[in-house]
Amino acid sequence: MRTSCALGEEQRRSIKNTASDALGVHAVTAAGARPRAEPEPRAVPIPIPPRSGSAGKGHSRISALPGAPRSRQYQIISREAPQRSPTMAGKKVLIVYAHQEPKSFNGSLLKITVEELTKQGCSVTVSDLYAMQFEPRATRNDIVGPLHNSEAFNYGVETWEAYKRGSLSKDVVEEQKKVQEADLLIFQFPLFWFNMPAILKGWMDRVLVQGFAYDLSKAYDGGLLQGKLSLFSFTTGGSQEMYSKGTISGDIRYILWPMQHGIMHFCGVKVLEPHICYAPACVSEEKRKEMLTAWTQRLKTLWKEEPIDCSPEWYFK
Amino acid sequence: MRTSCALGEEQRRSIKNTASDALGVHAVTAAGARPRAEPEPRAVPIPIPPRSGSAGKGHSRISALPGAPRSRQYQIISREAPQRSPTMAGKKVLIVYAHQEPKSFNGSLLKITVEELTKQGCSVTVSDLYAMQFEPRATRNDIVGPLHNSEAFNYGVETWEAYKRGSLSKDVVEEQKKVQEADLLIFQFPLFWFNMPAILKGWMDRVLVQGFAYDLSKAYDGGLLQGKLSLFSFTTGGSQEMYSKGTISGDIRYILWPMQHGIMHFCGVKVLEPHICYAPACVSEEKRKEMLTAWTQRLKTLWKEEPIDCSPEWYFK
Repeated sequence: MRTSCALGEEQRRSIKNTASDALGVHAVTAAGARPRAEPEPRAVPIPIPPRSGSAGKGHSRISALPGAPRSRQYQIISREAPQRSPTMAGKKVLIVYAHQEPKSFNGSLLKITVEELTKQGCSVTVSDLYAMQFEPRATRNDIVGPLHNSEAFNYGVETWEAYKRGSLSKDVVEEQKKVQEADLLIFQFPLFWFNMPAILKGWMDRVLVQGFAYDLSKAYDGGLLQGKLSLFSFTTGGSQEMYSKGTISGDIRYILWPMQHGIMHFCGVKVLEPHICYAPACVSEEKRKEMLTAWTQRLKTLWKEEPIDCSPEWYFK
Repeated sequence: MRTSCALGEEQRRSIKNTASDALGVHAVTAAGARPRAEPEPRAVPIPIPPRSGSAGKGHSRISALPGAPRSRQYQIISREAPQRSPTMAGKKVLIVYAHQEPKSFNGSLLKITVEELTKQGCSVTVSDLYAMQFEPRATRNDIVGPLHNSEAFNYGVETWEAYKRGSLSKDVVEEQKKVQEADLLIFQFPLFWFNMPAILKGWMDRVLVQGFAYDLSKAYDGGLLQGKLSLFSFTTGGSQEMYSKGTISGDIRYILWPMQHGIMHFCGVKVLEPHICYAPACVSEEKRKEMLTAWTQRLKTLWKEEPIDCSPEWYFK
């Protein structure tokens, strides 16, 4: 049995994408999870933070600042002495993480992010959506108590009204608090069907309600979440050449338009260059290590980066 | 309190989109669900099929062919005598529907689709995702019995393996059967954040697994769902001019790339022109009726339509 990694160059060119790309099948290392007949890539030997005690909870706050709450889930990290930088210390980061498996490549990227930003003196909060069993469906349950109009349910209007009177469901309010406090939002996920996984899309749908993230004529550069930064960090099944202009899968930036521009920019959040790890499951262990090192290096100077010009030109020029 | 409908032309130009666009706040008629100070658009007076008896089930099959199962949910429709056309009779249509409210504009569009296609002698199946409480999260629960590799969970690999050995979860298998039988897939939804709602994205993530919808080097024109047609039918909060080239929200076709090309085309499904009802909640009742009539008219000759050329040129030219 072969996967995309085993395809010859000719086949790669002919389909310009792997059969598994769209579902992110190979977007994780997941040692041993691949079909057996194929050469087995090994998981990058980075210790995975223990998850015991976090089941059903899934979010945690890690801070290097004295007195700040520490996470059971990431205790291994908080053992390290913080090396504060005057520009980064005290910055608050929310990582919204959507992968089922901590041993995955996405899990390694998450761990590095938490570790590196904590070292810098940042306060890091993780919303681990699968571990939280986060609800992606936008329903009447998101409003506590009676509806504004119970005759015909309009999710947008009802959540807007509920936000104003403080009657959104507890899980939504908790995520909104995390967003409100954050200087930087990092979204970490494997690409699923040219897009984020449904569980993460549900986070966007339910958390970024009108009144909180945008409002009447308060959108794009006037959005209510102004002053924050965002960064989309994700893995793909296909290689970088497969996601370039002129191929059948097109430029990777086409895919980023609805996410970066349609959501973050719409809410007034500035967007940093995305961080894309192409086909980590299809490359050597050495190359995967290089990818992780590159992410660590980028994080060291992340706060010096300028946001992209989030206009159609950036995506479709 | 004003909504986007009440914004002046200057404000519209300045933000080039409404504050509620991204969440589809006004993508439904939902009479009475809008803030009270605003002129109240009325729901289009189209009878809504009774939903009693369908709670927790949500999918139904309607067929005008003798002996075919009839739906309780849409009995009102099946009372009408079918007017079969030799070219359409017997065609099977699956509508994947993602709106919480049957009285919404999306609900009216759904009803029209079922009614018109049934009249033509088609067999129509509806997956009413919210009514079904469809699970959007891609988790280990989608695999019945032991995993291929329980050491590190890889959703793509596990569902691929489970598909081959017939051990995907019941709800996924049921949706796959509907897809397999269908000649045409219609996706009916309100635009949420430049994209489909999470519940519909979850349908894509979980139903279109490797081995079923695509496979090794069987993607795009070689995808496993060849021979089928698809159509994305959706409502927006913003007007047509707000979703055109040169505006901050960009051409509506940019948004369609991940959905039409990245999912349907990837699986080998041909794509018909999308059907977009712009800002139904912001126009007059007469205009809304015209929109519904236009959809009815389009459905009458739908089977004569040629698919679009689903290449980057169509989206980004």
